[in-house]
Amino acid sequence: MTREDLIEQIRLKKSYLCVGLDTDPDKLPSHILKEEDPVFAFNKQIIDATKDFCVAYKPNIAFYEALGTAGWESLRKTLAYIPDTHFTIADAKRGDIGNTSAMYAQTFFNRYPFDAVTVAPYMGRDSIEPFLAYAGKWAIVLGLTSNPGAGDFEQLLLSNGMRLFEQVLQTVAGWGSTENLMFVAGATRPEGLRQVRAVIPEHFLLIPGVGAQGGSLEAVSEAALNDDIGILVNASRSILYASSGVDFADRAFEEAASMQKAMSAFIG
Amino acid sequence: MTREDLIEQIRLKKSYLCVGLDTDPDKLPSHILKEEDPVFAFNKQIIDATKDFCVAYKPNIAFYEALGTAGWESLRKTLAYIPDTHFTIADAKRGDIGNTSAMYAQTFFNRYPFDAVTVAPYMGRDSIEPFLAYAGKWAIVLGLTSNPGAGDFEQLLLSNGMRLFEQVLQTVAGWGSTENLMFVAGATRPEGLRQVRAVIPEHFLLIPGVGAQGGSLEAVSEAALNDDIGILVNASRSILYASSGVDFADRAFEEAASMQKAMSAFIG
Repeated sequence: MTREDLIEQIRLKKSYLCVGLDTDPDKLPSHILKEEDPVFAFNKQIIDATKDFCVAYKPNIAFYEALGTAGWESLRKTLAYIPDTHFTIADAKRGDIGNTSAMYAQTFFNRYPFDAVTVAPYMGRDSIEPFLAYAGKWAIVLGLTSNPGAGDFEQLLLSNGMRLFEQVLQTVAGWGSTENLMFVAGATRPEGLRQVRAVIPEHFLLIPGVGAQGGSLEAVSEAALNDDIGILVNASRSILYASSGVDFADRAFEEAASMQKAMSAFIG
Repeated sequence: MTREDLIEQIRLKKSYLCVGLDTDPDKLPSHILKEEDPVFAFNKQIIDATKDFCVAYKPNIAFYEALGTAGWESLRKTLAYIPDTHFTIADAKRGDIGNTSAMYAQTFFNRYPFDAVTVAPYMGRDSIEPFLAYAGKWAIVLGLTSNPGAGDFEQLLLSNGMRLFEQVLQTVAGWGSTENLMFVAGATRPEGLRQVRAVIPEHFLLIPGVGAQGGSLEAVSEAALNDDIGILVNASRSILYASSGVDFADRAFEEAASMQKAMSAFIG
């Protein structure tokens, strides 16, 4: 999906919500566990319930991989079920030497035809470039993440006065364009989002951390929106597990609708 | 496998060779492609040919994942075929927020019972700790890698005078012990290996980059060996693809034997 098409979807739906499909069999309602493929059955209902309120879906690959080949099959079916109007992100945090990153890109752009994959920057240019070689596909590179450990290395002060995450944003931005690169910037640090925007005003940001991790949608929106909207705000657990009962899809519907309503106020 | 057992195997075999199973269907000898599971058939012959000369095997997960569910099945069979005397490494470069890293640890320590998994450090402590919570299992954290992109971020100078990779080594070393943490240190920079050893003299290092990537076994050994040996030197393509013909296993045998012979000179 192109940047233009993504922005069009956001303006059409007045929503920049991304629903994270961190589907954990241990958290599924008991009636769903009776289905032949409980993970897909759950995702299908979540997608049906939320698709009018969101523009993107982000399966967390760790959750599928942990289930072995059955999990990869649930992932394949889930991806096929997501409407073409929605941007799809493989949250995989991959990154390795060039020939290996090329294999990962093949997995998440060809075998499983996602629009985007999340990528870790530590190993530098040749670990990221293979993900930028596909027309209409995106690398979403870790900038400043939402977890407590973000303080350990991402925030380190460099000798040039920049923080490591600022250097990563600036350097990686030079390897691609606003048409094939986004960055992860966590919602748990609104002041961090402003620092991110100072370095990359135009790129799309994927913002996790709203909801279960404690970030505020309003603070995030004020800090990170740009003229093209320019953000995807992800919520996973707060939508998927809004209820653990038979009404889980209805509650997911309500949660997603409520987030979309709050977002609509920020879209002119 | 414990550190003690690993060192015992190294001394017994006079080898610190790790064979990287970066098995690529596009590079397999044509006669192997007729097998029902060509990747496993190839790996089986490589393991038979090299097991007396190496102490570890390191499947590169990207290569299996790219083949879909069939690839994961080849991986499962390969892991089951590796003798218990050998240390097994899932080269996966995983790392995410705590609850997600815990899923990755479950995948590579339980579902696929590897001894170790490679981990990217960018996201900090909670992205690494879940891999340290399994008795007898190891996290192998990226320090200074062997690829050209290692210069982009890993070598950045911090305001405290350290390079980023040195800070990563020092900080991460504090989260575990020499019994559950190793570090990746690339062979293409022997001077880099000396810098690594200055920060972590006792930890085991996983050293890729000898062979196809151009690193020298002698230079690496001189720079990185410690009193407990303390290194695993990986070779992948130079062994797997020593021949593209029907004699591939014989040539892999010769390559592995030659590396073991060179290593034996460094083991008293």
